[in-house]
Amino acid sequence: MSRTAAKPDPTDNTSFAARLNATAAETEHLLGRLLAADPAEGEISRPHRIVEAMRYSGLGGGKRLRPFLTVETAALFGVPRGHALMAGAAIELVHCYSLVHDDLPAMDNDDLRRGRPTAHKAFDEATAILAGDGLLTFAFDVLARPETHPDAAVRIALVMGLARAAGLGGMVGGQMLDLAAEGRFGKNDTPQGEKDVLTLQAMKTGAILKFCCVAGAILGNAPKTKLDAVGRYGQVIGQAFQIADDLLDVEGDTATLGKAAGKDAAHGKATLVDLLGIAGARTRLAQLVADAESALSPFGPDGAVLRDAARFIAERRA
Amino acid sequence: MSRTAAKPDPTDNTSFAARLNATAAETEHLLGRLLAADPAEGEISRPHRIVEAMRYSGLGGGKRLRPFLTVETAALFGVPRGHALMAGAAIELVHCYSLVHDDLPAMDNDDLRRGRPTAHKAFDEATAILAGDGLLTFAFDVLARPETHPDAAVRIALVMGLARAAGLGGMVGGQMLDLAAEGRFGKNDTPQGEKDVLTLQAMKTGAILKFCCVAGAILGNAPKTKLDAVGRYGQVIGQAFQIADDLLDVEGDTATLGKAAGKDAAHGKATLVDLLGIAGARTRLAQLVADAESALSPFGPDGAVLRDAARFIAERRA
Repeated sequence: MSRTAAKPDPTDNTSFAARLNATAAETEHLLGRLLAADPAEGEISRPHRIVEAMRYSGLGGGKRLRPFLTVETAALFGVPRGHALMAGAAIELVHCYSLVHDDLPAMDNDDLRRGRPTAHKAFDEATAILAGDGLLTFAFDVLARPETHPDAAVRIALVMGLARAAGLGGMVGGQMLDLAAEGRFGKNDTPQGEKDVLTLQAMKTGAILKFCCVAGAILGNAPKTKLDAVGRYGQVIGQAFQIADDLLDVEGDTATLGKAAGKDAAHGKATLVDLLGIAGARTRLAQLVADAESALSPFGPDGAVLRDAARFIAERRA
Repeated sequence: MSRTAAKPDPTDNTSFAARLNATAAETEHLLGRLLAADPAEGEISRPHRIVEAMRYSGLGGGKRLRPFLTVETAALFGVPRGHALMAGAAIELVHCYSLVHDDLPAMDNDDLRRGRPTAHKAFDEATAILAGDGLLTFAFDVLARPETHPDAAVRIALVMGLARAAGLGGMVGGQMLDLAAEGRFGKNDTPQGEKDVLTLQAMKTGAILKFCCVAGAILGNAPKTKLDAVGRYGQVIGQAFQIADDLLDVEGDTATLGKAAGKDAAHGKATLVDLLGIAGARTRLAQLVADAESALSPFGPDGAVLRDAARFIAERRA
C-alpha cells in the first residue's frame, strides 16, 4: 500500500467517495421507507414510540460501509442494484441494533454515537433495548421479502448467513469475548495474545463485514471459487477495519470520531496496536490491503472499486 | 365450556398431558442439541459463557406450549414431526429471548422466572442482554436449516411470519405498548379501554401464539382456507391465554407461578380482568374456548387435540 495513495473521504468528490455516498443515500432512503409508520401485511400496528426509536437508531448516520460492500460485491456478479440494496439494508439494520445494545449502560455505557446522544439517552433504556430487538428482528423481515431476491433459496441462504455471522458463533459471541477481555468475569477469560485478539475481532466485527461480501456473491449465485474469493476479501478487510479502528481509538479525538475515543485503554482491552505497536500495526494494515487486492485478482479490472474500498477502510479518519 | 370438564395438567397422566409432556421433552432435547458447545458450519467459535447463558435461558423449563401448538397444528396437515419440532424450537427461542429481555432491570426488573433466578441475576445484565440477542438471532438460524423443511420457499415463509409476529408490528411493538401502559412515557400513551388492551395483548403475546398455529399450516403447504382457520384458532387462544394469565396474576400466588404474582396491579396496567371483572373475564374466556372449537370445525375429529389445548390454556393454573 502506498502511503501517498489518494485517501478516499466521504467529503471528497472523488469517484470512490461519490459511489460510497450514493449507496449511503440510497440505503438511507430505503431504510426510511422500510421503517415507515404504517404496518406491513401481517403486522397489527406499529406503535409510534418504537418506530421513532428504531428510526432514530437506524437512520441519519454512518458511512453505510456494510451496504456499500454488499452492493459493490453484488455488482461483480451482475445482481440488480435494488436487490443488493435490500440485502445491504438488512445487514445495516443488524449493525445498528448492535450499536444500540452495545451502548447500553450495562454494556459499554456510551452517551454519544455518531455525534448524537445514544438511543438510551435520547429515549430511555427500556426503549433502547426494544428498539435494538426490533431492528434485529426487522433485518430478517427484510431478507425474507421477494424484493430482496425472487428466488426463495437465495433469500434463505442470506438468512442463514446473516444469522451465523450475527449470532453466538459470530458477533454476539464476539461481544461476549469483548466483555470478558475487560476482565468482567475474572482474569481467566482475558485474551492473552494475538491469536485471542484476532478471534475476538473476527467474531465481533469481522464476521458481519465478511458476510457483507459473501451476501453479494449469494445474491449473484456465484460459483464457489468466486464466493470464496470475496469471502477471503471480506475477512481480510474485516481485520484491516479493526486495526484502523484501534489506531483511531489511540490517535483520534472524540470530536472527529463522533463517539468516545480512548475507550479501549480505559477498559483495559488488548488490541493489535498494543501487541504490535503503532508502527507494527501500520505494517500489518498495509499487508492486509495487499492481501485484499490479491483476493480480488480473479475479478481483474472489475475489482477496482473493492480495491479502493480496502484502502478506504485502512486509511479512514473516522 | 363446561367448568366440570377435565382440567389438563402437565402432572396428570391424561392423554392430553402426555402429548404435551412428550413434545416438551422432545423440544428440550432438540434445543439442547442445537445449543451445543461446538460451533456450526460458518461459525467461528461458541464462547463458553454465551453458550451457558443461552442454555440457561433456553433450556430447563416451561410447558413448551408454543412448540406444542406448532407440532399439533402441523399434524393436521401430515407434516413430519421432526420438521414441526424444528419450527417449534425456533419459536420457543424467540419466546425465551423475550422473557430474558423483559426481565431486565430496565424492563420489568424481575428476579424470578420459572422458579429460578432470571438470567441477569444468574449471570449479569450484559450477559443477559447478549443471551437474549443470541437466542433471537438463533431462531432464524434454526428456521433457515433444511432440517426444518426441504423446501426453501416454506422456510422463507416461516422466517417472514416469525419476523412479523415478533417484530415492531407484533411482540416488540406490544412490549412498547405495555411499557406505555405503565405510564412510563406520560399519561397519553396509557390504554384507555378494551380496544387498546386487546391490541396491546394481541401484539405482546397473541401474535406469536397465532404464528405457532400458522407455522404448522405453512409447513404443511395448507390451502388458504385451512391456514386461515388455524390462524383464527391461534388468534382466539392467544386472547384466552392472556385472560387466563391476567386471572392468574390476580388469583395466583408466586410459588405456583414460578414468577412474581400481582405485577399488573403494582404496575398500574389495565387488563381485561379490570375492565370486565373476574366473572366477566371468566365468561369471556368460555366464549373464546367456544370460538376456538368453532374455528377447528373444518378439521372434524382431527381437531380434538387442539380443542383440548384451548381448554388447557383457558384453565391452566400456572
